[in-house]
Amino acid sequence: MKCTVGALSALRNLFLTACATLQILSSLYLYKCSVPACAVLQVFTFLDWRRHRSQSRYIHHIQTIRESGVVRSISRPVMIVAALSAVVAMYNHLFVVKPPWLPAWLPSPLTVAMEPIQLTTIALSLLLVFRTNASYARWEEARKSFGAITTTSRDIARQVLSWLPNTNEGREAKDTACRWLIALAKSSMVHLRDEHDLRQEVGSVLLEEEVARLESSGNRPMYCIQVLSHIFSSSGLPFNLVVCLDENLTRLVNAVYACERILGTPIPLSYTRHTARFLMAWLFCIPFTLWPYSGWAMVPLAALISFVLLGIEEIGIFLEEPFSVLALEHLCGSCAECIQSMRRSDTEISERVGGKGLQVQ
Amino acid sequence: MKCTVGALSALRNLFLTACATLQILSSLYLYKCSVPACAVLQVFTFLDWRRHRSQSRYIHHIQTIRESGVVRSISRPVMIVAALSAVVAMYNHLFVVKPPWLPAWLPSPLTVAMEPIQLTTIALSLLLVFRTNASYARWEEARKSFGAITTTSRDIARQVLSWLPNTNEGREAKDTACRWLIALAKSSMVHLRDEHDLRQEVGSVLLEEEVARLESSGNRPMYCIQVLSHIFSSSGLPFNLVVCLDENLTRLVNAVYACERILGTPIPLSYTRHTARFLMAWLFCIPFTLWPYSGWAMVPLAALISFVLLGIEEIGIFLEEPFSVLALEHLCGSCAECIQSMRRSDTEISERVGGKGLQVQ
Amino acid sequence: MKCTVGALSALRNLFLTACATLQILSSLYLYKCSVPACAVLQVFTFLDWRRHRSQSRYIHHIQTIRESGVVRSISRPVMIVAALSAVVAMYNHLFVVKPPWLPAWLPSPLTVAMEPIQLTTIALSLLLVFRTNASYARWEEARKSFGAITTTSRDIARQVLSWLPNTNEGREAKDTACRWLIALAKSSMVHLRDEHDLRQEVGSVLLEEEVARLESSGNRPMYCIQVLSHIFSSSGLPFNLVVCLDENLTRLVNAVYACERILGTPIPLSYTRHTARFLMAWLFCIPFTLWPYSGWAMVPLAALISFVLLGIEEIGIFLEEPFSVLALEHLCGSCAECIQSMRRSDTEISERVGGKGLQVQ
Amino acid sequence: MKCTVGALSALRNLFLTACATLQILSSLYLYKCSVPACAVLQVFTFLDWRRHRSQSRYIHHIQTIRESGVVRSISRPVMIVAALSAVVAMYNHLFVVKPPWLPAWLPSPLTVAMEPIQLTTIALSLLLVFRTNASYARWEEARKSFGAITTTSRDIARQVLSWLPNTNEGREAKDTACRWLIALAKSSMVHLRDEHDLRQEVGSVLLEEEVARLESSGNRPMYCIQVLSHIFSSSGLPFNLVVCLDENLTRLVNAVYACERILGTPIPLSYTRHTARFLMAWLFCIPFTLWPYSGWAMVPLAALISFVLLGIEEIGIFLEEPFSVLALEHLCGSCAECIQSMRRSDTEISERVGGKGLQVQ
Amino acid sequence: MKCTVGALSALRNLFLTACATLQILSSLYLYKCSVPACAVLQVFTFLDWRRHRSQSRYIHHIQTIRESGVVRSISRPVMIVAALSAVVAMYNHLFVVKPPWLPAWLPSPLTVAMEPIQLTTIALSLLLVFRTNASYARWEEARKSFGAITTTSRDIARQVLSWLPNTNEGREAKDTACRWLIALAKSSMVHLRDEHDLRQEVGSVLLEEEVARLESSGNRPMYCIQVLSHIFSSSGLPFNLVVCLDENLTRLVNAVYACERILGTPIPLSYTRHTARFLMAWLFCIPFTLWPYSGWAMVPLAALISFVLLGIEEIGIFLEEPFSVLALEHLCGSCAECIQSMRRSDTEISERVGGKGLQVQ
Repeated sequence: MKCTVGALSALRNLFLTACATLQILSSLYLYKCSVPACAVLQVFTFLDWRRHRSQSRYIHHIQTIRESGVVRSISRPVMIVAALSAVVAMYNHLFVVKPPWLPAWLPSPLTVAMEPIQLTTIALSLLLVFRTNASYARWEEARKSFGAITTTSRDIARQVLSWLPNTNEGREAKDTACRWLIALAKSSMVHLRDEHDLRQEVGSVLLEEEVARLESSGNRPMYCIQVLSHIFSSSGLPFNLVVCLDENLTRLVNAVYACERILGTPIPLSYTRHTARFLMAWLFCIPFTLWPYSGWAMVPLAALISFVLLGIEEIGIFLEEPFSVLALEHLCGSCAECIQSMRRSDTEISERVGGKGLQVQ
Repeated sequence: MKCTVGALSALRNLFLTACATLQILSSLYLYKCSVPACAVLQVFTFLDWRRHRSQSRYIHHIQTIRESGVVRSISRPVMIVAALSAVVAMYNHLFVVKPPWLPAWLPSPLTVAMEPIQLTTIALSLLLVFRTNASYARWEEARKSFGAITTTSRDIARQVLSWLPNTNEGREAKDTACRWLIALAKSSMVHLRDEHDLRQEVGSVLLEEEVARLESSGNRPMYCIQVLSHIFSSSGLPFNLVVCLDENLTRLVNAVYACERILGTPIPLSYTRHTARFLMAWLFCIPFTLWPYSGWAMVPLAALISFVLLGIEEIGIFLEEPFSVLALEHLCGSCAECIQSMRRSDTEISERVGGKGLQVQ
Repeated sequence: MKCTVGALSALRNLFLTACATLQILSSLYLYKCSVPACAVLQVFTFLDWRRHRSQSRYIHHIQTIRESGVVRSISRPVMIVAALSAVVAMYNHLFVVKPPWLPAWLPSPLTVAMEPIQLTTIALSLLLVFRTNASYARWEEARKSFGAITTTSRDIARQVLSWLPNTNEGREAKDTACRWLIALAKSSMVHLRDEHDLRQEVGSVLLEEEVARLESSGNRPMYCIQVLSHIFSSSGLPFNLVVCLDENLTRLVNAVYACERILGTPIPLSYTRHTARFLMAWLFCIPFTLWPYSGWAMVPLAALISFVLLGIEEIGIFLEEPFSVLALEHLCGSCAECIQSMRRSDTEISERVGGKGLQVQ
Repeated sequence: MKCTVGALSALRNLFLTACATLQILSSLYLYKCSVPACAVLQVFTFLDWRRHRSQSRYIHHIQTIRESGVVRSISRPVMIVAALSAVVAMYNHLFVVKPPWLPAWLPSPLTVAMEPIQLTTIALSLLLVFRTNASYARWEEARKSFGAITTTSRDIARQVLSWLPNTNEGREAKDTACRWLIALAKSSMVHLRDEHDLRQEVGSVLLEEEVARLESSGNRPMYCIQVLSHIFSSSGLPFNLVVCLDENLTRLVNAVYACERILGTPIPLSYTRHTARFLMAWLFCIPFTLWPYSGWAMVPLAALISFVLLGIEEIGIFLEEPFSVLALEHLCGSCAECIQSMRRSDTEISERVGGKGLQVQ
Repeated sequence: MKCTVGALSALRNLFLTACATLQILSSLYLYKCSVPACAVLQVFTFLDWRRHRSQSRYIHHIQTIRESGVVRSISRPVMIVAALSAVVAMYNHLFVVKPPWLPAWLPSPLTVAMEPIQLTTIALSLLLVFRTNASYARWEEARKSFGAITTTSRDIARQVLSWLPNTNEGREAKDTACRWLIALAKSSMVHLRDEHDLRQEVGSVLLEEEVARLESSGNRPMYCIQVLSHIFSSSGLPFNLVVCLDENLTRLVNAVYACERILGTPIPLSYTRHTARFLMAWLFCIPFTLWPYSGWAMVPLAALISFVLLGIEEIGIFLEEPFSVLALEHLCGSCAECIQSMRRSDTEISERVGGKGLQVQ
């Protein structure tokens, strides 16, 4: 019976210690919780690629570890695991040293065999990596969908510029279309991000009155597309070409709603939560398994293990909402620039190459 | 021969105990089985994302563990595994303590080596995670397909509004088309869910007589598309534009049947069942392997292991039928709102931008 | 030298025993080999989904284990592995008991260390699960391709019904097109399945003479599409609409040949065979590794391990040819029903909504 | 110091033995190296599927092991690993037996602990299986792309046959188009395979002069498409239908260049080579790790392990260039047959169904 | 307390040694860091495939190991791990030999148990292999996108050649279009690579003045497409055909921006960095775990383990920016050649087949 009592009291103590630790730490933990600003918002250049591939990247990775958003985000839970490890190691150490002041009724060392934990390691690793991959797929789809908005805008600009005649009326229609295409990209950005102000973004391309109308509309990107749709249907272009422009508008509608879909639907919460709970339970068990293998080295080891696994989970969460991670300003800016540069070179090209323009048949 | 007899009787006892346990528990188990209501039916906002990424999410995950549908669903099988573990642990404990009243003929402790079980752990983890991923892929396809219905509806509304003339007849056709587009989204939702009532959903947009006709039709979403098809073909629009509208109708047909396909075809049952049986056999073996490693700690460990693995399987089952998990009401509502807001702003835009409208050529 | 001789004779005996066992069992094995009839051929309803998710599914999985096609298919190889385990266990048991009649020259117990086998477990598990996933991808593509046939047929019916005029000639063309669309779905099913009779399937929709012509054609689904193609090109519809119908016909051609491609090209045989041989070699080694860990418990353990792994392989083979697993009859039936119901409601809708029909421009 | 010297000399001897073995074996190895002819070039029928699923497949897999191309390809490296294992086992065996003639200065047995090797097993298995999957994806894409050539050819034949009038000129154009469509499929096959002769393949469908022209052109499939393009643009068909035909020609161009892309770009060589080197280093280490676990049984075990892993790599290499594995002749043949059968039944169908043909509008 | 002091001083020494080693090595390491030139820039021929599959490939892989870019790239970090291993081994060896000059206060041997490290091996392997797969997916998408540019250029050339009349004006338009199509492919290459000079690449196809205009434009590939757009809209072709050409231009725009997207957006840096840091921490721990298993053999083993894992990471980095790895020059060259050969054979084909050309309707 002594053995049972010993085991039971060991369990009780294990839980009591854990609960107290959790209580104290969670209050400290919540003291200040903020989402770190992410800084991955520029587009890669050739120089960046050269650095990215350079052999010095390993040293760079070590040097930047303190500035990393992921590392800062997970530093608290990692420290909690390390603290728990230290408590467990101290307790177990006392049993080896057996100082005279140690009460005799204390249960045996806090250790759990590692083998049962190992049984779940594969499932945990797979879940974590697959979840991160699902987030990465969302990130990539978001990049493609927002890219579809800016690319299709350029394509529509190209069509409008080469099809509309260079009469006064045609020139005005070209200008209006270009302005609204730029406004579409920018209002999509505002729609998908929390921090932007619509008036500030589109103020330079739209008229004051248009901005007000746009601002008061229900779904702003859709309003821009509706305006474009009306511009094209009343442009006097032949129906074939109107249809061709309309196909591009349909692409824009699909791209805008693909972005909205990604923003509005996270990976099913039960999936995310189960993975996180699995990871937390697993990380909570780890400190109790390491003492027989590593002694005091278990503290850095537990910190390391929790660092790498929590890091994978953090990246998964981080990429799940991709619009705050993507360089949307840059994409909108280069789209606007490209449309304006096409507008500028339009007259020159049309004079040289296609002086005659579209011929009514 | 004694050894054989011992081994055989151990096996026999193992099976008898297991059968009795199963018998008793399965009757208790089936006492009340209900599908838990899932509550993941709203769309994510910026605030939700901020919470989702916050460092306090770990504490939130612990606090909400009791409200989680997945946890409630798997609580029974987890408790069964824990109870089995407790029985095994008690039996094995008796052999260590050897109380005088223990009959001598009882077989040796109930333990099986862990190594043979470990051989199958990788295959089990892979199967579970891949199956969950297949369910997640279904969920994502369902989200995209239903999204295609609402997005294409908006796109058709845009086309109709900018192409039809603002004559009385044209305005009426615009109204009718918008009404039937909203009815399509709502009747698709009713088609894909069990709990909705068609009359209640579309009563506000369709006339009484139309609702009756729709209700009595074989396939309701298809009926709506057929009506739209007739509206467009008799709208007097040029053929090019009729074809362009028809392409969007084809997209609607494909999206509706993609949803129906997902609802009608689960992941092949042999796949699902084999995974579940594999998991059940594996979880049944686990309690017999843990005693030498963990002693009484095997009870929480077995509960933990079964919790994480059954949870993965439960999520796979949960996401396999995605329409009861997706926020279809919200999607339909925002689609209807968008179409109505486009209808409202149509006159204003067409007056300002495209006063002339489509010109007959 | 004694050790070498011992090892060599152990090896020799191991192989001799294995060969004899294989010889005897393979003749028994081939006594009656039949492909079990698969019964997964209906479409899921809401009730099925409720059962599918119910907590009582675990008990259901146990109860139906005897009716499962997969279990019946793999019962023989599982029994062979179990029998081999029993032989090995008996042999090894004799060495523990050492009965006096045991000849002294018998080699040492038949055991192989488990560690070398474990080195290949990950590769085996990955191969098995990936191969099953490849089969699942084929199954899903088949479902989508056949679904494309039935969905596009409905879409063509919708187009024809709303575009052709309600004159006598137009009505006749509508009827003919609907009949051939139904015939297309049914002859595709006959084309992709072994067991159906064309005449019986399409006898109710086509005329006697048409059936004969269809039956004698080289590729029957293609013949139906060719007929439809001629119907549309001579329908007198404007070219824009003919082209629009033709795009749907192109989709039908692609869907029919996607199905034919899946049926005609299995996963490369070298892949399938290497996986199967790997699994067989691995399962053959397992019984020799389990004795030191499990004693007589190795017999159920070996049966269990072979059950789960052979089951995964069997499901992979089972899903590789998906058309005998999919509910093609149901799909064809609901397609035919939908087309007929659309045909019925056509007059009513066209009278109410689009009284004027297409206007020649 | 003795220990160091012992360890160092063990290492030295290990490397010397390995080098000598490699030297001798590589010369033997290169004695005759040929790519085995692959025989997987027919299309599956219902009978094949029945056999494929039959329970007797396991026995069939054993019986055909000697005829398998993969097995023959990897037999040499497997034998090398087995020979190396035998040498190591013999050396280690001598240390157990300690014959009197054994020189005293020989280092300790050639063994390396298995644990460090196991650390890399997961990465190796994942790399191998993922690489094989990448090859399988190439194979599938090749199958789909070549299938797109033959399917789109049939679709173009269908369009041409139902659109061109049955005048003398129209009939001639139909014949020419059909001939060039067949020539396209065949010249694509010649383009993608090494062994075929163009003149022999297309001699039966094209005129002598046309064959010469085709033979001397830069890119033969593209030449065929160019000819078809000219035929259609001068066919006198309405522009809508010319555009519809041209969309199919665009599909053909894309399919031809997709095939060319697969043929011209292997999986990045660094990926392939690193995987192969990883595997070779791993297999070289294995024989040194097995002695403590398996004694002389390590020879068959090492052969088995190298067989399964080299087999996976071999299949990856084998499927990477898919055109020599696919049944291209069969696909071309059935495409030609289908086009010819459509040509034959064209008159009959057009007389019965669409007597009027396309009406000029 | 002695034990604690011992463990702590062991830890301190471990860290001090590691820091010093890192300090010294990182300065040596950064002495000269250059990106190795990659040489995988040709297209595969039948001969290459034969060699690729030949059984002599294993020997070839060994022979080329010194020329491999990946091997040269990772040689430094591998050597660092090997050097660290040697230091650890030497230190541990001293404790076994216990030379008299060894100070007594030195802590115990530098070893950490392997089991805690093994817990993270699966997650590390999965992360590495998945990251490499994500890079491979980027590589494949880049290949397809650039392929879409060259393929669509050929397709446009085909359309232009078969649709424009063979009048003087038509011939000139054909020539101009072909020239700008070639310029598009080449300026896309210049846009996506760092090392090329635009003037040198397109100097042979464009006029001096055109080159200057192209060079000064904002986005050069887009400028080419804009010019093509104007050429087509003023070509006098019927609107249907202009639309058909425009669809191909839209494809070009999408392909160009898909390439730009891949170049501008690497895999999220947090993902890449976390994987690299995980790998570095893991590889740093490995040398401390190997001594009890392998003694001095740990030096080559640690080198081998770091070689294979760093190699996987290096390939992931290498394929992440695919345009410097793909044979873009070859693709542009064969595209230009194909367009020119089509231009040459155009007159001949059009005379023989389609003498009449497009007929105005």
